[in-house]
Amino acid sequence: MESNPVIKNILSRKSIRKYTDMPVSEDQIRILLRAAMAAPSAVNLQSWAFIVVTDRLLLNTLSMKLPYAKMVASAPVAIVVCGDLSKATYGGDYWVQDCSAATQNILLAAEALGLGAVWTSTYPEEDRIITVKQILSLPEYIYPLNVIPIGYPNQELTPKDKFDEENIHYNMW
Amino acid sequence: MESNPVIKNILSRKSIRKYTDMPVSEDQIRILLRAAMAAPSAVNLQSWAFIVVTDRLLLNTLSMKLPYAKMVASAPVAIVVCGDLSKATYGGDYWVQDCSAATQNILLAAEALGLGAVWTSTYPEEDRIITVKQILSLPEYIYPLNVIPIGYPNQELTPKDKFDEENIHYNMW
Repeated sequence: MESNPVIKNILSRKSIRKYTDMPVSEDQIRILLRAAMAAPSAVNLQSWAFIVVTDRLLLNTLSMKLPYAKMVASAPVAIVVCGDLSKATYGGDYWVQDCSAATQNILLAAEALGLGAVWTSTYPEEDRIITVKQILSLPEYIYPLNVIPIGYPNQELTPKDKFDEENIHYNMW
Repeated sequence: MESNPVIKNILSRKSIRKYTDMPVSEDQIRILLRAAMAAPSAVNLQSWAFIVVTDRLLLNTLSMKLPYAKMVASAPVAIVVCGDLSKATYGGDYWVQDCSAATQNILLAAEALGLGAVWTSTYPEEDRIITVKQILSLPEYIYPLNVIPIGYPNQELTPKDKFDEENIHYNMW
Protein backbone atom coordinates (compact mmCIF):
# COMPACT_ATOMS: atom_id res chain seq x y z
CA MET A 1 0.00 0.00 0.00
CA GLU A 2 2.93 2.33 0.55
CA SER A 3 3.61 2.15 -3.18
CA ASN A 4 0.23 3.79 -3.82
CA PRO A 5 1.11 7.15 -5.46
CA VAL A 6 -1.28 9.06 -3.18
CA ILE A 7 0.17 7.53 -0.01
CA LYS A 8 3.70 8.08 -1.31
CA ASN A 9 2.92 11.73 -1.99
CA ILE A 10 1.48 12.24 1.50
CA LEU A 11 4.56 10.65 3.07
CA SER A 12 7.04 12.57 0.92
CA ARG A 13 5.61 16.11 1.34
CA LYS A 14 8.24 18.44 2.75
CA SER A 15 8.28 22.04 3.96
CA ILE A 16 10.28 23.74 1.22
CA ARG A 17 11.68 27.17 2.10
CA LYS A 18 14.01 27.84 -0.85
CA TYR A 19 12.84 28.32 -4.42
CA THR A 20 14.43 28.71 -7.85
CA ASP A 21 13.58 31.59 -10.17
CA MET A 22 11.43 29.37 -12.35
CA PRO A 23 7.88 30.75 -12.50
CA VAL A 24 4.79 28.82 -11.41
CA SER A 25 2.25 28.80 -14.23
CA GLU A 26 -1.32 30.04 -14.03
CA ASP A 27 -2.50 26.51 -14.79
CA GLN A 28 -0.52 25.17 -11.84
CA ILE A 29 -1.95 27.82 -9.51
CA ARG A 30 -5.42 26.94 -10.73
CA ILE A 31 -4.91 23.26 -9.93
CA LEU A 32 -3.71 24.20 -6.44
CA LEU A 33 -6.85 26.28 -5.91
CA ARG A 34 -9.06 23.55 -7.31
CA ALA A 35 -7.46 21.14 -4.85
CA ALA A 36 -7.98 23.63 -2.00
CA MET A 37 -11.70 23.97 -2.69
CA ALA A 38 -12.12 20.19 -2.87
CA ALA A 39 -11.57 20.04 0.90
CA PRO A 40 -14.53 19.21 3.12
CA SER A 41 -16.05 22.01 5.20
CA ALA A 42 -18.41 22.10 8.16
CA VAL A 43 -21.99 21.75 6.87
CA ASN A 44 -20.47 22.46 3.44
CA LEU A 45 -20.31 26.23 4.05
CA GLN A 46 -17.00 26.59 2.17
CA SER A 47 -16.17 29.63 4.27
CA TRP A 48 -12.85 30.31 2.61
CA ALA A 49 -11.15 32.74 0.25
CA PHE A 50 -7.76 32.59 -1.47
CA ILE A 51 -5.46 35.47 -2.31
CA VAL A 52 -2.92 34.67 -5.01
CA VAL A 53 0.04 37.02 -4.59
CA THR A 54 2.46 37.35 -7.50
CA ASP A 55 3.25 41.06 -7.22
CA ARG A 56 6.92 41.33 -6.28
CA LEU A 57 6.43 44.38 -4.08
CA LEU A 58 3.63 42.70 -2.12
CA LEU A 59 5.67 39.50 -1.69
CA ASN A 60 8.62 41.55 -0.46
CA THR A 61 6.43 43.51 1.93
CA LEU A 62 4.91 40.32 3.37
CA SER A 63 8.41 38.91 3.81
CA MET A 64 9.68 42.05 5.53
CA LYS A 65 6.75 42.46 7.89
CA LEU A 66 6.42 38.76 8.80
CA PRO A 67 9.88 37.85 10.16
CA TYR A 68 9.07 34.12 10.37
CA ALA A 69 8.07 34.14 6.67
CA LYS A 70 11.21 35.64 5.15
CA MET A 71 11.23 33.03 2.40
CA VAL A 72 8.16 34.64 0.80
CA ALA A 73 10.54 37.17 -0.79
CA SER A 74 12.21 34.44 -2.83
CA ALA A 75 9.01 32.70 -3.97
CA PRO A 76 7.40 33.46 -7.34
CA VAL A 77 3.93 33.19 -5.78
CA ALA A 78 2.22 32.88 -2.42
CA ILE A 79 -1.31 31.78 -1.66
CA VAL A 80 -2.92 33.34 1.40
CA VAL A 81 -5.64 31.04 2.71
CA CYS A 82 -8.34 33.02 4.49
CA GLY A 83 -11.51 32.36 6.41
CA ASP A 84 -14.55 34.24 5.13
CA LEU A 85 -16.45 34.92 8.33
CA SER A 86 -19.44 36.26 6.42
CA LYS A 87 -20.01 32.66 5.26
CA ALA A 88 -19.09 30.99 8.57
CA THR A 89 -22.62 30.98 9.90
CA TYR A 90 -22.45 27.63 11.71
CA GLY A 91 -20.73 28.04 15.05
CA GLY A 92 -17.75 30.33 15.25
CA ASP A 93 -14.54 28.50 14.66
CA TYR A 94 -15.10 25.82 12.03
CA TRP A 95 -13.50 27.99 9.35
CA VAL A 96 -10.09 27.28 10.95
CA GLN A 97 -10.59 23.54 10.40
CA ASP A 98 -12.02 24.00 6.89
CA CYS A 99 -9.17 26.27 5.81
CA SER A 100 -6.57 23.96 7.36
CA ALA A 101 -7.92 21.05 5.30
CA ALA A 102 -7.84 23.28 2.19
CA THR A 103 -4.24 24.24 3.04
CA GLN A 104 -3.18 20.62 3.36
CA ASN A 105 -4.70 19.95 -0.08
CA ILE A 106 -2.62 22.81 -1.53
CA LEU A 107 0.58 21.46 0.04
CA LEU A 108 -0.07 17.93 -1.24
CA ALA A 109 -1.02 19.14 -4.71
CA ALA A 110 2.15 21.27 -4.84
CA GLU A 111 4.26 18.23 -3.95
CA ALA A 112 2.49 16.25 -6.68
CA LEU A 113 3.28 18.94 -9.27
CA GLY A 114 6.96 18.99 -8.32
CA LEU A 115 6.60 22.30 -6.50
CA GLY A 116 7.73 23.16 -3.00
CA ALA A 117 5.70 25.03 -0.42
CA VAL A 118 5.52 25.73 3.29
CA TRP A 119 2.68 26.63 5.66
CA THR A 120 3.57 29.86 7.52
CA SER A 121 0.94 30.61 10.13
CA THR A 122 -0.86 33.90 10.57
CA TYR A 123 -3.89 32.97 12.71
CA PRO A 124 -4.29 33.05 15.71
CA GLU A 125 -1.54 35.69 16.20
CA GLU A 126 -3.38 39.02 16.30
CA ASP A 127 -0.37 41.09 15.15
CA ARG A 128 0.25 38.85 12.13
CA ILE A 129 -3.44 38.93 11.18
CA ILE A 130 -3.49 42.73 11.26
CA THR A 131 -0.26 42.93 9.23
CA VAL A 132 -1.51 40.63 6.46
CA LYS A 133 -4.92 42.31 6.39
CA GLN A 134 -3.29 45.71 5.94
CA ILE A 135 -0.83 44.64 3.24
CA LEU A 136 -3.52 42.88 1.17
CA SER A 137 -6.39 45.30 1.97
CA LEU A 138 -8.56 42.50 3.31
CA PRO A 139 -12.06 43.42 4.46
CA GLU A 140 -12.90 43.13 8.15
CA TYR A 141 -14.64 39.73 7.75
CA ILE A 142 -11.70 38.05 5.96
CA TYR A 143 -9.21 36.36 8.31
CA PRO A 144 -5.84 35.18 6.96
CA LEU A 145 -5.02 31.72 8.36
CA ASN A 146 -1.60 31.47 6.73
CA VAL A 147 0.69 32.51 3.90
CA ILE A 148 1.98 29.70 1.65
CA PRO A 149 5.01 30.60 -0.50
CA ILE A 150 5.26 28.29 -3.53
CA GLY A 151 7.95 27.70 -6.13
CA TYR A 152 10.23 25.10 -7.63
CA PRO A 153 12.39 23.68 -4.81
CA ASN A 154 15.92 24.98 -4.52
CA GLN A 155 16.85 22.60 -1.71
CA GLU A 156 16.91 18.85 -1.30
CA LEU A 157 15.11 17.62 1.78
CA THR A 158 14.40 14.16 3.09
CA PRO A 159 10.84 13.98 4.40
CA LYS A 160 10.65 13.66 8.19
CA ASP A 161 9.38 10.34 9.52
CA LYS A 162 7.13 11.48 12.34
CA PHE A 163 5.29 8.20 12.90
CA ASP A 164 5.18 7.58 16.63
CA GLU A 165 3.51 4.53 18.11
CA GLU A 166 2.96 6.41 21.37
CA ASN A 167 0.47 8.69 19.66
CA ILE A 168 -1.85 5.74 19.00
CA HIS A 169 -4.39 4.37 21.46
CA TYR A 170 -6.87 1.56 20.95
CA ASN A 171 -10.51 1.88 21.99
CA MET A 172 -9.78 3.70 25.23
CA TRP A 173 -6.94 5.90 26.43
CA MET B 1 -2.20 17.87 -14.64
CA GLU B 2 -5.65 16.74 -13.64
CA SER B 3 -4.67 13.23 -14.67
CA ASN B 4 -2.01 13.20 -11.92
CA PRO B 5 -3.16 10.46 -9.51
CA VAL B 6 -2.64 12.68 -6.46
CA ILE B 7 -4.68 15.54 -7.91
CA LYS B 8 -7.36 13.10 -9.07
CA ASN B 9 -7.57 11.62 -5.59
CA ILE B 10 -7.92 15.05 -3.97
CA LEU B 11 -10.70 15.98 -6.41
CA SER B 12 -12.54 12.68 -6.03
CA ARG B 13 -12.60 12.43 -2.21
CA LYS B 14 -16.18 12.16 -0.97
CA SER B 15 -17.84 12.16 2.45
CA ILE B 16 -18.96 8.52 2.73
CA ARG B 17 -21.61 7.85 5.39
CA LYS B 18 -22.63 4.25 4.56
CA TYR B 19 -20.33 1.27 4.92
CA THR B 20 -20.41 -2.41 4.05
CA ASP B 21 -19.67 -5.12 6.63
CA MET B 22 -16.23 -5.71 5.17
CA PRO B 23 -13.54 -5.16 7.82
CA VAL B 24 -10.74 -2.63 7.51
CA SER B 25 -7.40 -4.34 8.07
CA GLU B 26 -4.81 -3.41 10.68
CA ASP B 27 -2.39 -2.65 7.85
CA GLN B 28 -4.85 -0.23 6.32
CA ILE B 29 -5.41 1.52 9.65
CA ARG B 30 -1.66 1.78 10.09
CA ILE B 31 -1.27 3.45 6.70
CA LEU B 32 -4.00 5.93 7.62
CA LEU B 33 -2.18 6.77 10.86
CA ARG B 34 1.15 7.03 9.09
CA ALA B 35 -0.48 9.47 6.65
CA ALA B 36 -1.97 11.45 9.55
CA MET B 37 1.40 11.89 11.28
CA ALA B 38 3.01 13.01 8.01
CA ALA B 39 1.06 16.27 8.26
CA PRO B 40 2.95 19.46 9.08
CA SER B 41 2.52 20.96 12.54
CA ALA B 42 3.31 24.33 14.06
CA VAL B 43 7.03 24.42 14.99
CA ASN B 44 6.90 20.63 14.47
CA LEU B 45 5.31 19.98 17.88
CA GLN B 46 3.12 17.13 16.56
CA SER B 47 0.60 17.86 19.29
CA TRP B 48 -1.78 15.11 18.27
CA ALA B 49 -3.06 11.71 19.40
CA PHE B 50 -5.21 9.14 17.61
CA ILE B 51 -7.75 6.78 19.14
CA VAL B 52 -8.57 3.79 16.94
CA VAL B 53 -12.02 2.54 17.91
CA THR B 54 -13.04 -0.93 16.75
CA ASP B 55 -14.99 -2.06 19.82
CA ARG B 56 -18.60 -2.45 18.72
CA LEU B 57 -20.04 -1.25 22.01
CA LEU B 58 -17.91 1.90 21.95
CA LEU B 59 -18.81 2.61 18.31
CA ASN B 60 -22.49 2.18 19.14
CA THR B 61 -22.21 4.42 22.19
CA LEU B 62 -20.48 7.16 20.18
CA SER B 63 -23.21 6.87 17.55
CA MET B 64 -25.99 7.06 20.13
CA LYS B 65 -24.57 9.98 22.09
CA LEU B 66 -23.51 12.03 19.03
CA PRO B 67 -26.71 12.43 17.02
CA TYR B 68 -24.92 14.01 14.04
CA ALA B 69 -22.58 10.99 13.86
CA LYS B 70 -25.13 8.17 13.68
CA MET B 71 -23.18 6.48 10.88
CA VAL B 72 -20.42 5.54 13.32
CA ALA B 73 -22.62 2.59 14.38
CA SER B 74 -22.36 1.05 10.93
CA ALA B 75 -18.60 1.55 10.48
CA PRO B 76 -16.08 -1.18 11.28
CA VAL B 77 -13.66 1.40 12.68
CA ALA B 78 -13.47 5.05 13.65
CA ILE B 79 -10.40 7.19 14.22
CA VAL B 80 -10.76 9.97 16.77
CA VAL B 81 -8.25 12.72 16.02
CA CYS B 82 -7.27 14.55 19.20
CA GLY B 83 -5.14 17.48 20.19
CA ASP B 84 -2.61 16.71 22.91
CA LEU B 85 -2.50 19.99 24.80
CA SER B 86 0.40 18.80 26.93
CA LYS B 87 2.50 19.04 23.74
CA ALA B 88 0.89 22.23 22.40
CA THR B 89 3.40 24.53 24.05
CA TYR B 90 3.60 27.11 21.25
CA GLY B 91 0.62 29.45 21.45
CA GLY B 92 -2.71 27.98 22.34
CA ASP B 93 -4.66 27.03 19.29
CA TYR B 94 -2.28 25.63 16.67
CA TRP B 95 -3.24 22.06 17.52
CA VAL B 96 -6.59 22.64 15.77
CA GLN B 97 -4.76 23.43 12.53
CA ASP B 98 -2.25 20.60 12.97
CA CYS B 99 -4.97 18.05 13.66
CA SER B 100 -7.09 19.31 10.77
CA ALA B 101 -4.18 18.77 8.39
CA ALA B 102 -3.69 15.28 9.85
CA THR B 103 -7.42 14.61 9.38
CA GLN B 104 -7.31 15.66 5.75
CA ASN B 105 -4.41 13.25 5.21
CA ILE B 106 -6.51 10.43 6.72
CA LEU B 107 -9.46 11.24 4.44
CA LEU B 108 -7.26 11.36 1.33
CA ALA B 109 -5.42 8.17 2.25
CA ALA B 110 -8.75 6.41 2.85
CA GLU B 111 -9.97 7.45 -0.60
CA ALA B 112 -6.72 6.17 -2.10
CA LEU B 113 -7.19 2.77 -0.42
CA GLY B 114 -10.76 2.44 -1.72
CA LEU B 115 -12.21 3.20 1.69
CA GLY B 116 -14.89 5.72 2.57
CA ALA B 117 -14.78 8.12 5.50
CA VAL B 118 -16.36 11.30 6.79
CA TRP B 119 -15.19 14.07 9.14
CA THR B 120 -17.71 14.47 11.96
CA SER B 121 -16.77 17.42 14.15
CA THR B 122 -16.43 17.39 17.90
CA TYR B 123 -14.42 20.54 18.64
CA PRO B 124 -15.32 23.35 19.36
CA GLU B 125 -18.71 22.14 20.70
CA GLU B 126 -18.24 21.79 24.46
CA ASP B 127 -21.00 19.17 24.91
CA ARG B 128 -19.59 16.94 22.17
CA ILE B 129 -16.07 17.23 23.59
CA ILE B 130 -17.27 16.16 27.03
CA THR B 131 -19.27 13.26 25.57
CA VAL B 132 -16.35 11.85 23.57
CA LYS B 133 -13.92 12.36 26.47
CA GLN B 134 -16.21 10.40 28.77
CA ILE B 135 -16.88 7.52 26.38
CA LEU B 136 -13.16 7.05 25.56
CA SER B 137 -11.80 7.95 29.03
CA LEU B 138 -9.60 10.68 27.62
CA PRO B 139 -7.36 12.56 30.06
CA GLU B 140 -8.05 16.21 30.73
CA TYR B 141 -5.34 17.44 28.32
CA ILE B 142 -6.59 15.40 25.33
CA TYR B 143 -9.13 17.25 23.16
CA PRO B 144 -11.09 15.32 20.51
CA LEU B 145 -11.28 17.37 17.30
CA ASN B 146 -13.46 14.91 15.40
CA VAL B 147 -14.63 11.32 14.95
CA ILE B 148 -13.92 9.74 11.54
CA PRO B 149 -15.92 6.58 10.77
CA ILE B 150 -14.17 4.49 8.11
CA GLY B 151 -15.24 1.49 6.07
CA TYR B 152 -15.76 0.20 2.55
CA PRO B 153 -18.31 2.48 0.85
CA ASN B 154 -21.87 1.23 0.62
CA GLN B 155 -23.05 4.17 -1.44
CA GLU B 156 -22.09 5.67 -4.78
CA LEU B 157 -21.40 9.37 -4.65
CA THR B 158 -20.24 11.83 -7.26
CA PRO B 159 -17.66 14.18 -5.76
CA LYS B 160 -18.94 17.75 -5.36
CA ASP B 161 -17.36 20.34 -7.63
CA LYS B 162 -16.93 23.25 -5.23
CA PHE B 163 -14.56 25.32 -7.34
CA ASP B 164 -15.78 28.91 -7.26
CA GLU B 165 -13.98 31.69 -9.08
CA GLU B 166 -15.43 34.22 -6.65
CA ASN B 167 -13.32 32.77 -3.84
CA ILE B 168 -10.13 33.81 -5.67
CA HIS B 169 -8.52 37.23 -5.47
CA TYR B 170 -5.30 38.41 -7.08
CA ASN B 171 -2.69 40.40 -5.13
CA MET B 172 -5.24 42.51 -3.27
CA TRP B 173 -8.85 42.01 -2.25
